[in-house]
Amino acid sequence: MSTSAHAPAPGSAGTVETRYLDLPDPVELDCGRTLHPVRVAYETYGTLAPERDNVLLVCHALSGNAHAAGVAATPPPEGTRDGFAARDRDGAAGRGLGWWDGMIGPGKAFDTDRYFVVATNLLGGCGGTTGPSSTDPATGEPYGPDFPVVTVADMVRTERAFLTALGIERLAAVAGGSLGGMRALEWAVRYPDQVDAIVVIASTHALHPQGVAWNAIAREAILRDPDWRGGRYYGTGRAPDAGMGVARMVGHVTYLSAPALEGKFGRRLQFADDIRHTITEPEFEVENYLRHQASSFVRRFDANSYLYISRALTYFDLAREHGGGSLARALDGVAARTLLIAFSSDWLYPPAASREIAEALRALGKPVEEHVIDTRYGHDSFLLEEARQTPIIRRFLS
Amino acid sequence: MSTSAHAPAPGSAGTVETRYLDLPDPVELDCGRTLHPVRVAYETYGTLAPERDNVLLVCHALSGNAHAAGVAATPPPEGTRDGFAARDRDGAAGRGLGWWDGMIGPGKAFDTDRYFVVATNLLGGCGGTTGPSSTDPATGEPYGPDFPVVTVADMVRTERAFLTALGIERLAAVAGGSLGGMRALEWAVRYPDQVDAIVVIASTHALHPQGVAWNAIAREAILRDPDWRGGRYYGTGRAPDAGMGVARMVGHVTYLSAPALEGKFGRRLQFADDIRHTITEPEFEVENYLRHQASSFVRRFDANSYLYISRALTYFDLAREHGGGSLARALDGVAARTLLIAFSSDWLYPPAASREIAEALRALGKPVEEHVIDTRYGHDSFLLEEARQTPIIRRFLS
Repeated sequence: MSTSAHAPAPGSAGTVETRYLDLPDPVELDCGRTLHPVRVAYETYGTLAPERDNVLLVCHALSGNAHAAGVAATPPPEGTRDGFAARDRDGAAGRGLGWWDGMIGPGKAFDTDRYFVVATNLLGGCGGTTGPSSTDPATGEPYGPDFPVVTVADMVRTERAFLTALGIERLAAVAGGSLGGMRALEWAVRYPDQVDAIVVIASTHALHPQGVAWNAIAREAILRDPDWRGGRYYGTGRAPDAGMGVARMVGHVTYLSAPALEGKFGRRLQFADDIRHTITEPEFEVENYLRHQASSFVRRFDANSYLYISRALTYFDLAREHGGGSLARALDGVAARTLLIAFSSDWLYPPAASREIAEALRALGKPVEEHVIDTRYGHDSFLLEEARQTPIIRRFLS
Repeated sequence: MSTSAHAPAPGSAGTVETRYLDLPDPVELDCGRTLHPVRVAYETYGTLAPERDNVLLVCHALSGNAHAAGVAATPPPEGTRDGFAARDRDGAAGRGLGWWDGMIGPGKAFDTDRYFVVATNLLGGCGGTTGPSSTDPATGEPYGPDFPVVTVADMVRTERAFLTALGIERLAAVAGGSLGGMRALEWAVRYPDQVDAIVVIASTHALHPQGVAWNAIAREAILRDPDWRGGRYYGTGRAPDAGMGVARMVGHVTYLSAPALEGKFGRRLQFADDIRHTITEPEFEVENYLRHQASSFVRRFDANSYLYISRALTYFDLAREHGGGSLARALDGVAARTLLIAFSSDWLYPPAASREIAEALRALGKPVEEHVIDTRYGHDSFLLEEARQTPIIRRFLS
């Protein structure tokens, strides 16, 4: 089960291929429905110890996938909806690198010399795991809007079933940023005796109302696109790309900070040093950048998956789901050691959310470590500030 | 020229009617085109002094209009695109009150016992002043996308021409919030010998890149709506309401602060205390609120006007337009006394922007007064925090 690597670069997880596993049993969902069949796309890096006690599960965020590290054996074809890599924001996708390649590999934060790192695509996604674009066995057509509304807990149940199918019972750690951090928290609460440690980065126990609002606006942009067709756009030759583009632009600005945009673009105009008096064309560099982000995203991500995953992360609320409204009660059973990392300029998943979790765990006498990294890259810092996260994570895991 | 008032409430500007004036001459625009005819919608409150030296021009923001104070003589018809009042955010529109009624009237911040207050709808608007929904004399059809791309300077030129037509040469003061504050600044720079004082609230000399991005996203949402039809939707029986709704939602969240949304909605669900597992329906109160804001806005505002005005306010850049890139050089000729008010939680027009203007004026030895009001209502504070602005403004103007 080790990674096949052809002369990997130093620190690289090597050349990797996404694999697929069909779960033997249906997955029972929060909404009351069961889902079957469920396929899970995954990659692994490093070697599983004979005692099977070195497994580290890495959880991706909204737009991620199972290709977390190394170089894709089969680079994603350009311009196709199925071929994508998560890390387009800094160009790594073009080189086929995993979205957290800077964090996973020999000697890296999640050290493949020590850990058997497993990355899966989440339930509801469009990176090979069953989602709204998968075939509904009841109709032979893509699920579309008939796909059940899944929750973060459902995603974690799926990860649990997947690991069981691989013969893995315990996890040395679960790690993730943003929605990935929500899943790490859910693992620690839901399966307290099966997780030794969690690494929760740029995440929260419940998204604040402004974050709920941004996600609602992004979904509205898709829902209001006539090409969404009530979710049944597969096979029509069209897709709600216009709305998805707007959704991505909204998301993108929330992932960055105002100072980051100031530093990267300022108010620089695209052409010479004067305006051209146009309503329809980009004038400022930041406007052009957003259009580019939108058009590259719609080529690699399914709009229905976006809707379902965005909904799941707004629903996520540890206190409501596990504590009758009390975060302390929700966290009462946690046995895992917890590492929380937040970023000073992250206004979507602000440090205050991590602090609330840390304080609740501390009050319960649980082992918890909390760091706020001073950075200006906003929420995206969890993908960009690898050098500053690495020593913290390595020390915590050692 | 005094306001006709039927038994006004104490402090009220009384019952007012929007009036219209056709400018005698064409308006020359920054883009090189001239516009003719130009009609200006306006209201006045108080009495013009025989010396004509008590005129105070009030400038509205993106979604405002000429009905700044008092009670509309003809309440806006419900559900029509033409009938609107700007202040829907707090429900005042339903009562026909002007968008700044709390600030304009006898004894108020802009005291109609002393000043002859004039409010106009801006060039490019949809509240009676010539804009993209007006008839193009060249075709007999609405301008639509053939309307020239106007700037803040063009709006101010139009205001200047309008006041001249009224027989008014000097202004005791120009006041406005947000885009209205930009116009006050433009007045002081463009016509330094005709303005005694400016009151610039929650505004800036140049919108920061994140604000440019939000405006670009709002415009994209409209441009990508198939019902926009390249701007030629008038008479089609349809309008880009879907995209306009998304634009309004984006704008609305940027006008508020995260703590304001937390305080107003928290994560409260709409129905009982559990989720219903739905992608298409609002679940959180904040989601429902945004949908309501969107649907009420599209009934009262023209999408093309939104596009043009949003573009103008992103273009606005005193340093680029008047100082060859230097704010100090741009402000060098200002003769008006300047009052700047900003709000601590306003992240769209943050206090830092006001501070830059104040520092530049101070360095030039100009009379300037700067206040930052501690509030949690974000950018909307300029419409809501009337009681706290009033003593500052009254003292400054006295």
